[in-house]
Amino acid sequence: MSEFSIPKGYRASGVRAGIKPSGGLDLALIVADAPGAAAGTFTTNRVAAAPVKWDRELLPSDGIRAIVINAGNANAATGEVGYQNARRTAEIVADHLQCDPEGVLVASTGVIGHQLPMDCLEEGIGRGFEALSYEPSGFNDAANAILTTDSRPKIVSRRIPLESGKFTLFGMAKGAAMIGPRMATMLGFLITDARIAPGALQGILSRAVDESFNCISVEGHTSTNDTVLLLAGSNSDRPFLRGDDLKAFSAVVEDACIELAKMIPDDGEGATHRITVDVQGCRDRDEAEKIARAVADSPLVKTAIHGADPNWGRIVSAAGYAGIPFAESEMSLRLNGVPLYAEGVPLPFDAESVSRDLRANREVHILLSFTRGGASIRFWTCDLTAEYIRLNADYTT
Amino acid sequence: MSEFSIPKGYRASGVRAGIKPSGGLDLALIVADAPGAAAGTFTTNRVAAAPVKWDRELLPSDGIRAIVINAGNANAATGEVGYQNARRTAEIVADHLQCDPEGVLVASTGVIGHQLPMDCLEEGIGRGFEALSYEPSGFNDAANAILTTDSRPKIVSRRIPLESGKFTLFGMAKGAAMIGPRMATMLGFLITDARIAPGALQGILSRAVDESFNCISVEGHTSTNDTVLLLAGSNSDRPFLRGDDLKAFSAVVEDACIELAKMIPDDGEGATHRITVDVQGCRDRDEAEKIARAVADSPLVKTAIHGADPNWGRIVSAAGYAGIPFAESEMSLRLNGVPLYAEGVPLPFDAESVSRDLRANREVHILLSFTRGGASIRFWTCDLTAEYIRLNADYTT
Repeated sequence: MSEFSIPKGYRASGVRAGIKPSGGLDLALIVADAPGAAAGTFTTNRVAAAPVKWDRELLPSDGIRAIVINAGNANAATGEVGYQNARRTAEIVADHLQCDPEGVLVASTGVIGHQLPMDCLEEGIGRGFEALSYEPSGFNDAANAILTTDSRPKIVSRRIPLESGKFTLFGMAKGAAMIGPRMATMLGFLITDARIAPGALQGILSRAVDESFNCISVEGHTSTNDTVLLLAGSNSDRPFLRGDDLKAFSAVVEDACIELAKMIPDDGEGATHRITVDVQGCRDRDEAEKIARAVADSPLVKTAIHGADPNWGRIVSAAGYAGIPFAESEMSLRLNGVPLYAEGVPLPFDAESVSRDLRANREVHILLSFTRGGASIRFWTCDLTAEYIRLNADYTT
Repeated sequence: MSEFSIPKGYRASGVRAGIKPSGGLDLALIVADAPGAAAGTFTTNRVAAAPVKWDRELLPSDGIRAIVINAGNANAATGEVGYQNARRTAEIVADHLQCDPEGVLVASTGVIGHQLPMDCLEEGIGRGFEALSYEPSGFNDAANAILTTDSRPKIVSRRIPLESGKFTLFGMAKGAAMIGPRMATMLGFLITDARIAPGALQGILSRAVDESFNCISVEGHTSTNDTVLLLAGSNSDRPFLRGDDLKAFSAVVEDACIELAKMIPDDGEGATHRITVDVQGCRDRDEAEKIARAVADSPLVKTAIHGADPNWGRIVSAAGYAGIPFAESEMSLRLNGVPLYAEGVPLPFDAESVSRDLRANREVHILLSFTRGGASIRFWTCDLTAEYIRLNADYTT
């Protein structure tokens, strides 16, 4: 467990509620001392999970007291019963806090299509309240309790010294597969003691998510449960952040989201390489994103990297089917800094040396540059390995 | 080698030109006795191969004498030199036939980004002309010479008894990976002795390809070289097909294209299951296609099938990110005939029995039905296995 800081006015816990068949930690609580502002971004999947539907109706809000998260069951594709179970989960937490259920956000992750075991939830939430702590240990337990196939917890924290005072940001996330976020991602939770109005908070979170969680993928399968939540300002004796302080805060949130988001493909199921895809020189960000996503999600690109194969034709051909009407002569490619293709023409290069470099290093850098404009994007993904197949095919029901 | 029929007036051959490092058959010729009508459909990839660019300019045409196909080198992402090499290949064939190079179509498949070894091409074409035969053996050699990682040749033939006479259709295709055709597919070649005008022929081919090669995928990576060509009517003493005969011919072409297209995912690299995805009850065909493609290309769906895991949440969640604004209550799912999800509600089912069924049978049927309209589509794909990863990562440069 690495060192991290917790914003004032928040407690957390992670406990065993008996939802995961493994018997591991599977229920997390984050509780604010007082109602605060909250913002959220969610999956665009039409089969949105019940907790996503519940949270979406509530945010942005300035009356949020708690987040309750369960792992082991996604409560997705569960119909009206599933929605009532998400609401009931909020009610159980609200009863402990003596607040409205609308003050409680809910998130779930795990298998799709099964109803939540509500007796486990009820008992687990009771135990979660007993375990609540202001200490890092409580937050570390929470960060572990939201994991499914992840190999490690994903935590960031930032101290934020501003004109109007010193603040702290803490964030945690989960995700190792079914990662192809569009407008949202798997589960991410951030809290801060800076005081920010809900509308401003939503803008800050949405911009940060666009540059972080929306720029990662493992295999491109957009989940039903993608949720990122940001709570702020429960420490309500402070003034609202304004002007330069708000901008500085926003930059810290974006930076923390990027750090957290990168941990997801880095822990991608079976992954052996971290791949950064830079797409530059496009007409607009949307062009750059479509090209980066096509490259990052191509199983042929991902297996080539896994095999340390400088088979760069797979990269330029993936860019070619992204739906952007570029000409080949507008495109150049570098792999780990080595120019392979320049303005539509293949270059001679030392394939053995590029392959050795791919074999020796976990980090891979793909740079696709165009001569179409000034827009760019940075995208993060991982390679595709036989271990991913084994995890998703051989170890199942 | 199974029995098949060859249309009158065509010869073919397949020879070793030394392009494939393996030393296998890698150059195919199809030669018509007289100039005939030809239609083609091609990749929408912006990094289109040089031979695709050459053919696109020529079709539809009524002056095509030959198709020359090489395997082992895609002649894609090769710039102006690559285009000149494609033209030169047509010229070499045209010299043998004493026709214009514009009477020769070219197709290539193999590794991207390397220039064609033109000396091998020139010598191989010479040997290909010596080997030309009207017999099935020549066509069988050609069908083998266009393969790369395919495990077997892909051939169809049809006898077509029409009012105006008896005709024959022969077709061959290749492809086992980099299969995610959009508006075209990997290589497919069809020839017939029925006489049809180029415009009508193009319409017939385009419709057939939409229902066949455009409805398959292996991993969804749209190739740079996708090409389907249809030659007709070199037997020019017959009248043009008209009316009911033209309709009947068109239906045979579609049927033959579907049979040929299905052979591709059936031979998908490492595949252990053939998956048919039926999407029914959509507002229009485009809706149905987007949903079918999202399901067919999801690595999580493909690994679940491979693992005989009735984890149907992966199927409905893939449909959910297809970009179609359906409501969950409009969707139902059957897997191998077993109802798993009905109008947004999960159904109880015998998971052990469905899993046993998946384990025992190579054929898998996914039926997603909606209550949005009358449009439907049938899509074919295969599962994703560790063997696919091995083939694309471990056995490379």
